[in-house]
Amino acid sequence: MSEQIVVVGFGPVAARLIDELLPAVREGHVSLTVVGEEAEAAYNRVLVADLGVGRTTAEALALSDAAALAADGVDVRLGVRVRRVDRARQQVILTDGTSAHYERLVFATGSRPVIPNLTGINPDPASPVLPAGVTALRDLRDAEVLKRAVDSGKRVVVLGGGVLGLETALAAAEEGATVTVVHNGPHPLGRNIDRGGGAVLAASLRRCGVRMAGNARSTGVEHNAPDGGFSALLLNDGSAIDGDLLVLSCGVRPRTELAEGCGLSVGAGILVDHRLRAHHEPHIFAIGDCAEVRCPDPACGECRTAKGPSGLVGPGWRQAEWLAEYLTLLATGTQEEADALQELPQEHAGVIVLKARGMNMAVAGDNGAEPWDEEVLTAGAVDGRPRLQIAQWADPEHGRYVKMTTRGGVLEGLVAVGMPRTAAELVGLFERGAELPADRSLLLRLDGPDQLATSGPADPEGTVCRCAGVSGAKIQGAVADGCSTVAEVSKSTRAGTGCGGCHEDIKGLIEKHFQAAPAA
Amino acid sequence: MSEQIVVVGFGPVAARLIDELLPAVREGHVSLTVVGEEAEAAYNRVLVADLGVGRTTAEALALSDAAALAADGVDVRLGVRVRRVDRARQQVILTDGTSAHYERLVFATGSRPVIPNLTGINPDPASPVLPAGVTALRDLRDAEVLKRAVDSGKRVVVLGGGVLGLETALAAAEEGATVTVVHNGPHPLGRNIDRGGGAVLAASLRRCGVRMAGNARSTGVEHNAPDGGFSALLLNDGSAIDGDLLVLSCGVRPRTELAEGCGLSVGAGILVDHRLRAHHEPHIFAIGDCAEVRCPDPACGECRTAKGPSGLVGPGWRQAEWLAEYLTLLATGTQEEADALQELPQEHAGVIVLKARGMNMAVAGDNGAEPWDEEVLTAGAVDGRPRLQIAQWADPEHGRYVKMTTRGGVLEGLVAVGMPRTAAELVGLFERGAELPADRSLLLRLDGPDQLATSGPADPEGTVCRCAGVSGAKIQGAVADGCSTVAEVSKSTRAGTGCGGCHEDIKGLIEKHFQAAPAA
Repeated sequence: MSEQIVVVGFGPVAARLIDELLPAVREGHVSLTVVGEEAEAAYNRVLVADLGVGRTTAEALALSDAAALAADGVDVRLGVRVRRVDRARQQVILTDGTSAHYERLVFATGSRPVIPNLTGINPDPASPVLPAGVTALRDLRDAEVLKRAVDSGKRVVVLGGGVLGLETALAAAEEGATVTVVHNGPHPLGRNIDRGGGAVLAASLRRCGVRMAGNARSTGVEHNAPDGGFSALLLNDGSAIDGDLLVLSCGVRPRTELAEGCGLSVGAGILVDHRLRAHHEPHIFAIGDCAEVRCPDPACGECRTAKGPSGLVGPGWRQAEWLAEYLTLLATGTQEEADALQELPQEHAGVIVLKARGMNMAVAGDNGAEPWDEEVLTAGAVDGRPRLQIAQWADPEHGRYVKMTTRGGVLEGLVAVGMPRTAAELVGLFERGAELPADRSLLLRLDGPDQLATSGPADPEGTVCRCAGVSGAKIQGAVADGCSTVAEVSKSTRAGTGCGGCHEDIKGLIEKHFQAAPAA
Repeated sequence: MSEQIVVVGFGPVAARLIDELLPAVREGHVSLTVVGEEAEAAYNRVLVADLGVGRTTAEALALSDAAALAADGVDVRLGVRVRRVDRARQQVILTDGTSAHYERLVFATGSRPVIPNLTGINPDPASPVLPAGVTALRDLRDAEVLKRAVDSGKRVVVLGGGVLGLETALAAAEEGATVTVVHNGPHPLGRNIDRGGGAVLAASLRRCGVRMAGNARSTGVEHNAPDGGFSALLLNDGSAIDGDLLVLSCGVRPRTELAEGCGLSVGAGILVDHRLRAHHEPHIFAIGDCAEVRCPDPACGECRTAKGPSGLVGPGWRQAEWLAEYLTLLATGTQEEADALQELPQEHAGVIVLKARGMNMAVAGDNGAEPWDEEVLTAGAVDGRPRLQIAQWADPEHGRYVKMTTRGGVLEGLVAVGMPRTAAELVGLFERGAELPADRSLLLRLDGPDQLATSGPADPEGTVCRCAGVSGAKIQGAVADGCSTVAEVSKSTRAGTGCGGCHEDIKGLIEKHFQAAPAA
């Protein structure tokens, strides 16, 4: 008899789970239902900003084919939401009046944009009704709103200095829009970056044509446009930033209300253990943006230092892959056999990468300490644990900045602005936990004027696509097997299906292959 | 008839003046009297600390030979002081009751150590009677006191974090003494260095075995030694730093009382114009540590930005050489002919260099601004004058730090700690006013692990001895002509007769010459 699995949500993480469960579905071990509130099957949400500036198409963003899934026997229900979960009867009740029984229920409800509490915007998070000329940047409808503004040369105001806001601003500015980023604090990227890196980053953004309004606290929205829509963002110092479209990019919040409604434990996200199971509920799981891995064992050291949901697609995909294997084992064998599966390792701190024409930035880990903060650097250096050390290169005149925060020679944090090769090398060293050369300044040479401008990643053995976890070697293999475009490589290897930050590297590997080929 | 010239003071600067006047003395154009209060003729005061730790001898420090000068007809009067100057009669009255007539009088009275106002020390600057176990570091007697302490393994407390105090501390520590440097502020070298460089410098000093007591305000001296001498330096926080010898290294003050006594204008030093003449007194001149070049013209732009006496021997020597030429012209020709001599150009800001086994530091110019001090960096950038820019490398873990403060690509300030080749290159660029490479990080490569450890200066065309202003090419010439020791090179070229910081470079050039010579 096949096991009933219901997946709530149909974003990129749900899509990966479904993909990985398909063999078990085809073999009849699993009977699968997926409920998605949007009319479309899963698409790449990370690239909604690219869609909004006309750089990609909705078709290229698609991650799932609802018809193909249905043909494989998956029960795909689109444009409908789960009204509530009845844990006693093990069923979900949908808004269209239908219901579905489950033996395993997976929450993949993702997150929703934070709508800031501004005069003139309804702050109810469950059903925000945004006025004309104000949009978040989460789904295909939002992208359409942005695209209309960019295409007609409107002035765009981006509220929020996070990585999504900055990428949106850079892309819109590159496509010719007049863009202002409004953010709290002295520099964008808030606590992810340090003061020096933030200052150089802000200057680089300005050089790319993005206006930066820092240390700004917005209080309200003015609606004086001819259509009654957005006309200006009001600040608490009495000033206003005029514009035609306000893009809200103030972070996301896990969608947990359905889980809370059926009595599950919720922290920042739905609390799950190291097997992604909801606390004290073996039938329910959660993955992706809505899930928070924090097990019920108060003595678990890993969970003591765990952070909330990462908001990145890579960790969600790794959870989806692991859970698919676990659920397949549960469906085909015993609980003990499934539990023999090695638990998903703790995620490293995420690497944040920002790429645009003429700018490059990577940050990861903790970067708050400055070279002379003896107290901060020596805190926690007990029982032989080495203290933190910092090496720092600052050349703001040339838009370059590097900070390496190490413990025992291994990176605990990195900031690199305007130095793409140094950034790539540091990210690799960070992810491998490898020791840096004693002379840290050697790393700066990678971006020296004597380095040949070669395309492609420095080390093809390393990870090229961090979202999907694909190495350069694997991509080279796909190219050797006939892939000659990024789209083909993505289809074959999944590389490049996430944030898109590796597309240039993939292109470089393709070019390298065809240059090396003997002339016909 | 020969012109009567009297020189008051017989330190290194007076010695150079006398040397350069000797041809005119021998030819009978000038009749020269020199009055020195010490029993010895001029010796190299800069190396008194080296003498105090037993690294050199009093003989090696000698810069003048009184008997030889007397044989040349110079009236050398040692161990006697000038009681007063009678400008109306143009004569100096000495403490031994004799007097001397002058047509030209040159003050080369130098400076005296600042004696801090501490309980237990007589602060009268004119006749400080220092208690047993307390010494300054200015003359051969002071050196003898330090030498006895170092030889007998005593604990030395150095009060003052200036370059002389640090060099004394490093040398004494290297020779085995227990040394503590007590200084104001968070780091040594006060305003000459910036925060980052100061922190790395202090750590380097500690690594060299020198104890550093920063942020210390001393209030008094304790005399509990068996002989009633110094036993501890008392601080205002109630603590005490125990020791057997207190070396006062709190800077120097120009000796101007004789000039003031005869009614000359005095600022920080004796005020002189660009021909080194006392204001409104064509018969009197001043050079070296006691002189302050600041002309009576309030509209003179050069004097508006001029700083007081530099306290360095190099500028004093350049003044002595210029003045000897001017006085010779006055003695042999007309005032007009003398005034046709080109005025001495304004001195560049001095370069401060600190070298010891295992440590290297160079600072020059203004280093106060930090990379993110927008207000400081843009101040004064008007009328097309470029703003200040800063590039900075900080790797305190490995004792390395570089800061380059530039305007229009040209250094206005530099700090280099623990990077000897980078330091030498930056000092050369600073002195030449040359533009830095656009990628400032190229300069860090000079101290990279792949640089061969060659002896000698990087650029032999550049200045090797900054005190005497001697190029590497001139030293190479002297070596080719037969000089095979530093002493011989010094005798032939004067290179190495000042602070001694270039001795290693001279050694390197000698070694290079003999390595290159074909085997016999």
